[in-house]
Amino acid sequence: MTQAKRLGYLGPAGTNTEQACIAYDSGASLLPYPSISEVASAVESNRVDEGVAPIENSVGGGVSVTLDLLIHGSGLLIRNELVLPITHSLLARQGTEPADVRVIYSHPQALEQCRIYLAERLPNAQPVASLSTAAAVEEMLAAPVTSAAIATERAGELHGACLIERGIEDYPNNMTRFVVLAGSDHPRTGDDKTSICFSFDDDAPGILYSVLGEFAGRNINLAKIESRPTREALGRYIFLVDLEGHREDAVVRAALQEVRRQVSMLKIFGSYPRYAMP
Amino acid sequence: MTQAKRLGYLGPAGTNTEQACIAYDSGASLLPYPSISEVASAVESNRVDEGVAPIENSVGGGVSVTLDLLIHGSGLLIRNELVLPITHSLLARQGTEPADVRVIYSHPQALEQCRIYLAERLPNAQPVASLSTAAAVEEMLAAPVTSAAIATERAGELHGACLIERGIEDYPNNMTRFVVLAGSDHPRTGDDKTSICFSFDDDAPGILYSVLGEFAGRNINLAKIESRPTREALGRYIFLVDLEGHREDAVVRAALQEVRRQVSMLKIFGSYPRYAMP
Repeated sequence: MTQAKRLGYLGPAGTNTEQACIAYDSGASLLPYPSISEVASAVESNRVDEGVAPIENSVGGGVSVTLDLLIHGSGLLIRNELVLPITHSLLARQGTEPADVRVIYSHPQALEQCRIYLAERLPNAQPVASLSTAAAVEEMLAAPVTSAAIATERAGELHGACLIERGIEDYPNNMTRFVVLAGSDHPRTGDDKTSICFSFDDDAPGILYSVLGEFAGRNINLAKIESRPTREALGRYIFLVDLEGHREDAVVRAALQEVRRQVSMLKIFGSYPRYAMP
Repeated sequence: MTQAKRLGYLGPAGTNTEQACIAYDSGASLLPYPSISEVASAVESNRVDEGVAPIENSVGGGVSVTLDLLIHGSGLLIRNELVLPITHSLLARQGTEPADVRVIYSHPQALEQCRIYLAERLPNAQPVASLSTAAAVEEMLAAPVTSAAIATERAGELHGACLIERGIEDYPNNMTRFVVLAGSDHPRTGDDKTSICFSFDDDAPGILYSVLGEFAGRNINLAKIESRPTREALGRYIFLVDLEGHREDAVVRAALQEVRRQVSMLKIFGSYPRYAMP
């Protein structure tokens, strides 16, 4: 009998990341951690086999803590990815009328993703930021005035809050991409992606043009290109690129070798099977 | 006698944006607004002459609400820019010992920018997110347990909080770039920048390579290149580029004309004098 995989994730229970863990491996035993860096430590010290973290949202963009961990942090690699639709629910104590709500709790990203809905339906509610959507439900239940929270339906069930409305997000294609972090990346499958980051010593966007030419000239498709601040100076960036192919494919290996000669820093986050929407 | 310029900004008083307004025009009359979009409305309806908003921070990256306003919102243009060093202060009620602090209030970006300091000096403090650094000071003063706030020194003076420590940010080169928004951009000065954004119908980063070639081939330096999510789908981006030169310079005009033929959307945010650090 094989042991269930131990999956660490950014908790508490009831967050979207917990849903991603269930979608990735419904038989795994799930261990919540209070921060992404503690998820990473748990993987590194073998308290869990793999860790799951959000990396990008179609509305909010890159998830800074996860990207910073890959860029600056540990030696963990991306072993897998998955993409989940994100839906937000309005939750409150039983008997709450939406018109009476004076305070609305949620994570700032969720408040932002429901801004049009809130302006139309709860115009008198004051938004208050929480550290997670699950924490927002707890704060709402403890609040002294009539309040509501934006969270997953499951967070409402876990904490005994009532569902007022489902699917209150402003943009219908709200998707989050999650990565599975582990001590090693994934063997070649033939339909893979590779994530890298690089930066330059000079603030010379001309080098970016040259680097992109290494991929374009070899017909390597890029699935993503994104910039992040270096934290050192305005106008200097770390570029994050997802390319199609495995780092062990000959053409990818050749391109990365050329790129390494042009940049001041190149880090390979790993190669992993390309996620196909079910 | 000339009337003082009326400058709208993202309030309340005591925020970093207020400091930027004073640095931009110390004789202006300053009018705080509760959101960037209300600053924009005030400019459009002529209740203020210009509006000031943060657009980019060296640690946190692009400021989404300001970028979204330029990308999706009104027809306001960038008329000027300025760059200010950002410094965070630890504030508390009189007589508070740092070791006793159990809750630390601030805007999530400020909490993030002081993460190492907080872990070392206030390891037992629970971070709580506020909607602005100035609001954090008010929440701290009203808190039932021993608390502190991260905000500007001026916010502490305005609200009667005590300064515990100055300059608690983790990264020494913490700079924020602010833009001045108005109904028209700035006439040519000979040392200018132009901000644009563009996107593609296909998720084809190969087009980015071709667009960058239009600038590289004309020796137009890029001061910045950044990507933002389109909000429509994962892997599709709006690219934000700041280039050196004025949109009325012949070489810039020619490049933008070629770019417009290759992209599905091109928006010029304006040309304005390049900011020189004092």
